[in-house]
Amino acid sequence: MSYLLSYIVAKLGGELVGPDITIERLAPLDAAGPGALTFLANPKYRKQLDGTAASAVIVSPDMAEAAAGRSLIVARDPYLYFAQVATLFHPTPVAVPGIHPRAVVGEDSRVGGSSEVREGVSIGRNTVIGERCRLLPGVVVGDDVVLGDDVVLHPNVTIYAGCRIGSRVTVHAGTVIGSDGFGLAWAKDHWFKIPQTGVVVIGDDVEIGANTTIDRGAMADTVIANGVKIDNLVQIAHNVHIGEHTAIAGCVGIAGSTHIGAYCTVGGAAMFVGHIEIADRTHIGGGTLVSKSIRKPDNYASSYPLSTMKDWLSNAVHLRHLDDYVERLKKIEREVGALRNSEEDKE
Amino acid sequence: MSYLLSYIVAKLGGELVGPDITIERLAPLDAAGPGALTFLANPKYRKQLDGTAASAVIVSPDMAEAAAGRSLIVARDPYLYFAQVATLFHPTPVAVPGIHPRAVVGEDSRVGGSSEVREGVSIGRNTVIGERCRLLPGVVVGDDVVLGDDVVLHPNVTIYAGCRIGSRVTVHAGTVIGSDGFGLAWAKDHWFKIPQTGVVVIGDDVEIGANTTIDRGAMADTVIANGVKIDNLVQIAHNVHIGEHTAIAGCVGIAGSTHIGAYCTVGGAAMFVGHIEIADRTHIGGGTLVSKSIRKPDNYASSYPLSTMKDWLSNAVHLRHLDDYVERLKKIEREVGALRNSEEDKE
Amino acid sequence: MSYLLSYIVAKLGGELVGPDITIERLAPLDAAGPGALTFLANPKYRKQLDGTAASAVIVSPDMAEAAAGRSLIVARDPYLYFAQVATLFHPTPVAVPGIHPRAVVGEDSRVGGSSEVREGVSIGRNTVIGERCRLLPGVVVGDDVVLGDDVVLHPNVTIYAGCRIGSRVTVHAGTVIGSDGFGLAWAKDHWFKIPQTGVVVIGDDVEIGANTTIDRGAMADTVIANGVKIDNLVQIAHNVHIGEHTAIAGCVGIAGSTHIGAYCTVGGAAMFVGHIEIADRTHIGGGTLVSKSIRKPDNYASSYPLSTMKDWLSNAVHLRHLDDYVERLKKIEREVGALRNSEEDKE
Repeated sequence: MSYLLSYIVAKLGGELVGPDITIERLAPLDAAGPGALTFLANPKYRKQLDGTAASAVIVSPDMAEAAAGRSLIVARDPYLYFAQVATLFHPTPVAVPGIHPRAVVGEDSRVGGSSEVREGVSIGRNTVIGERCRLLPGVVVGDDVVLGDDVVLHPNVTIYAGCRIGSRVTVHAGTVIGSDGFGLAWAKDHWFKIPQTGVVVIGDDVEIGANTTIDRGAMADTVIANGVKIDNLVQIAHNVHIGEHTAIAGCVGIAGSTHIGAYCTVGGAAMFVGHIEIADRTHIGGGTLVSKSIRKPDNYASSYPLSTMKDWLSNAVHLRHLDDYVERLKKIEREVGALRNSEEDKE
Repeated sequence: MSYLLSYIVAKLGGELVGPDITIERLAPLDAAGPGALTFLANPKYRKQLDGTAASAVIVSPDMAEAAAGRSLIVARDPYLYFAQVATLFHPTPVAVPGIHPRAVVGEDSRVGGSSEVREGVSIGRNTVIGERCRLLPGVVVGDDVVLGDDVVLHPNVTIYAGCRIGSRVTVHAGTVIGSDGFGLAWAKDHWFKIPQTGVVVIGDDVEIGANTTIDRGAMADTVIANGVKIDNLVQIAHNVHIGEHTAIAGCVGIAGSTHIGAYCTVGGAAMFVGHIEIADRTHIGGGTLVSKSIRKPDNYASSYPLSTMKDWLSNAVHLRHLDDYVERLKKIEREVGALRNSEEDKE
Repeated sequence: MSYLLSYIVAKLGGELVGPDITIERLAPLDAAGPGALTFLANPKYRKQLDGTAASAVIVSPDMAEAAAGRSLIVARDPYLYFAQVATLFHPTPVAVPGIHPRAVVGEDSRVGGSSEVREGVSIGRNTVIGERCRLLPGVVVGDDVVLGDDVVLHPNVTIYAGCRIGSRVTVHAGTVIGSDGFGLAWAKDHWFKIPQTGVVVIGDDVEIGANTTIDRGAMADTVIANGVKIDNLVQIAHNVHIGEHTAIAGCVGIAGSTHIGAYCTVGGAAMFVGHIEIADRTHIGGGTLVSKSIRKPDNYASSYPLSTMKDWLSNAVHLRHLDDYVERLKKIEREVGALRNSEEDKE
C-alpha cells in the first residue's frame, strides 16, 4: 500500500510543499527512513527534524520554514493529520459476512446479513445484531441484547442480557458489560443481594479497552454516552453515567451512581467514590482519588510525591502528627506576637 | 408480574398502612410513577417523598407519619425490605437442566442431573458439579474441581484444577480462580518459579464480580470464607484468607498471605501489602494503602486529599521537606522558650 | 511421588546431614508433619524450628548447628532450594499432542506436532505455534502470530494478530495481549482514533498472570524482554518496554511509552505515568505513583501513611494549606531572629 503525497492532500486537506513523492510507510521522527512519512507535532522534538531520514514530514504552518528542504504537508494539527493518514495505510478490517457453523444463535435473534459471527460465539435469545458487525471467537452475548451497526466485539467479550449498544462501538478482548452491580444490604448476620435490574446502555462511537468491566444498574441503567473512550482494566460500577466524549485511561475505578460530565479526561488509576458529580470539561490527574463532587472544571490531582524510600520514611511519618504541628505553629505565632508587643512596649 | 401489597407483607413481614393496591414495578424515589413501589431509607431524601408519584412507599416507623397519605409498608429497614421485594419481582433465573452437545465433559466427571451446562463449556476430568448449577457459555473448569449446588458461573469464567467451591456461589464473567500465585525466588541471574501447589477454597454464599482474579496458594490454600462478597477487578494473591461476610469493593488488591478478618468492609481500590493481619470488623476507606497489620477494628484511611493541580503543586512539594520543617519548628519553639524566659527574668 | 534425601542432593546439590530418609511431601515450617521436608529461610522463623514435626529441613550453613538433631539439607539459599525441590514433586504438566476436533486452525497456520490444542481454541491464519505448546480451552490466537516452543496459554487467553511470543512463556487465564493502545487525537468535537499499527513482542522465559492486559504499540512495538515476570491485573500500555528479568506485582499500571529497566522490582498497585525512563535495578514500593523518570537505582515510595479515619480527618486537611504553614514558619523564624538580635543588642 503506497500513496502519493498529492493523493493524501486531496483526500485529507493540508498543503503540499516540495516534490510530490510516493509514501510507502509511516514512522516516528526518530525511526523514519526513506519512503516514510513522519510528523512533528511537539516543538520540543524539533531538533530531531534535522536528523530524520524521512522522505516527507507533516508540520504545522509555523514549522514549515524550519522544515524546508524536503517534501512537507503543512497542516494545522500535524498529530491529528498523521492519525488520519495512518488510517489510510491501516484500514480497519471489514466484516466477512456469515455465521460460523460453530457459533450458536438463540431463538428469535436476528443477525444482520453483512455481519460476521465467528466460531465459538454464543448469542442468546431475542437479541438483535446490526449490519457489518464483527463478533470474534469466544464472544458471548446474552438474551435481549441490541447491538447497532459496525460493532466489533473482540475475543472473549461478554455482554449480559438486556444491554443496549449503539453503532460503531468497539469492545476489546475480555471486557464484561452488564455484570451485576455490587449492591448489598446488611441483614442482621449476612449480606442480602439487591437485584440489579437495570442494564448498561452504550451510545455510538464508543471504544472500550480490554478486560474492562461495566456493571448493569440497579433499577435504573448505567449509561455511557456517545463518543466516550475507555481504556483497559477500568471498573465502572452500577448506575454510573459517563458524559459524551469523555476519555478514561487505564486502571480507573468509578464507584456506584457517580456521574462524570462530558469532555472530561481521566488519568490512569484515578478512583472516584460513589454518588458524586463531576462537571463537564474536568481533567483528573493520574492516581487521583476523587473523594467529592467537582463543580468547577479545572485540573485536579491528589498524590503523595515520589520519593526515595529513605526520604519517604523520614518525611511521611510526620503526616500522622500534622495537626499537632499546626497547633504548635499557631501557639508559637501567638507567643512571638506577645514577645514582639512587649518588646515594642519597652521601646 | 405484579403483587398486592398485602401479599408482599404476608410474605416478607412489615405493616401495611393505607389501601391495599397492586404493585407493578419498583423504582427509585425520584423516578417512581403510578403503579410503582419505592422506598425511603435515608432521611436526607425525605424531601423527595412529597414529590414522588409512587403508588406506595416502604418507610421506617419514624417516617410513617411524614409519609402518610399514600399506601405504605412500614418496615424496620426499608432498604433491605426493598431489596427483598426486588427479589420477588426479579427472581434469579433457574437452571435449564442438560449438557449442551457442544460442551465437553472430561472422563470421570459428574454433573448433577438438574444442572445446566451450556455450549462452549469445558469441564476437565474427575470434576464434580452439584445440582441446579448454571455453567454459561465459555466457562472452563479444570480437573479435580468440586462445585457445590446452585453455583452460577457466568460466561468465560476459568476455574483451575483442584479448586473447591461451595454452594450458592455466583462468579461473574471473565473471573479467574486458581491461577498460579506470584511466587519467585531469585537464582543468581534469573527468577526461579516456585510451584504453586495449593488451591483456592471458596465457602458457601459467596459472590465474586467480573474479571477478578484469585490465585491458588503455594503449598497451603487461598481461602474465601462463607458469605464473602467480592466486586469486579479485585486481585487476591496466594495464601490470602478472607473471613466470613467480609465485603470487598472493586479494584482492591490483596498481596500474598494477608489474612483479612470477618465482617470487614474494604472500599474500592484499597491495597493491602502481604503477610499482614486485619482484625474482624475493620473498615478500610477507598484508596487506602494498608501497609501493616490492624489489630484494633476501626475505620482506616490513607490518601492525599483532592486538590486542584495548582494547589497540589504549591502544597505537595513541601512533603519532601516535612522532616526539615518539623525540626525548624522544634528549634523555634526552643528559641521562643529561651526568649520568654529571658523576658520573664527581666520582669 | 517420594524421594530419598540423597536423591534430592544428588540432583540439586547441597549437603545432606543426618539420616537419609524418604520424603513424601513438602510443607511450610508450621504445618509440616512426619514424612515432610520443610525449609528455614528467614531467621525470624527460627523459633518454629524447634516445634516442627517435619522429618527434614533445608537450612543455610549458619543455621545447621541450631537445626541439628534431624535430617538436614544444608544449602546456601534454602528458599530457592525448596522451590527447586517443589518442582521435583510437582512437575509442570506436559503437552498431550494433538488438535482437538473442536478447535479451529486457520489457513496457512502451522502447529508443532508435539503441541496440544484443546477444544474451543481458535487459531487464525498464517500463525506459527512451536513444539510442546499447550493451548487450553477458549484460547484465541489471531492471524500472523508466532509462538515459540513450550508456550502455555491458559483458558480464555486472547493473543491479537501479529504478536510474537518467545519460548517457555506462560500466560495465565483471561489475559489479553495485543489489544489496541489508547491512542486518541482530539478532532474539534470528537476523539479520532490513532491506528495502533505495532505489535507486542515477548521474549523467552516470561510468565504473565491472569486478566492482565498488554497493548500493541502505535507504529513501534510494545516489548517485554526475556525473563520478565508479570502478575495479575497488570496494565501495560502501548510502546512500553520492560527490561530483562524485571518482576511486576499485581494491579500495576504502566502508561504509554514508558521504559522500565532490567532487574527492577515493582510492588503491587504502583502506577507509572507515560513517557518516562526507569533505571535498571530500581525498586518501586507498593502503591507508588511514579510521576517522573528515575535515573538513580534505589528504593522508591509515595504513599500517605495508614491512619484511623479520625486521625486522617484531623491531619490530612492541613495538606491543603501546607504552603501557607511553611510561609508562616519562615516568617516566624525571621521574627524570632529579629527578637533575638534585639535581645542581644541590649545585653
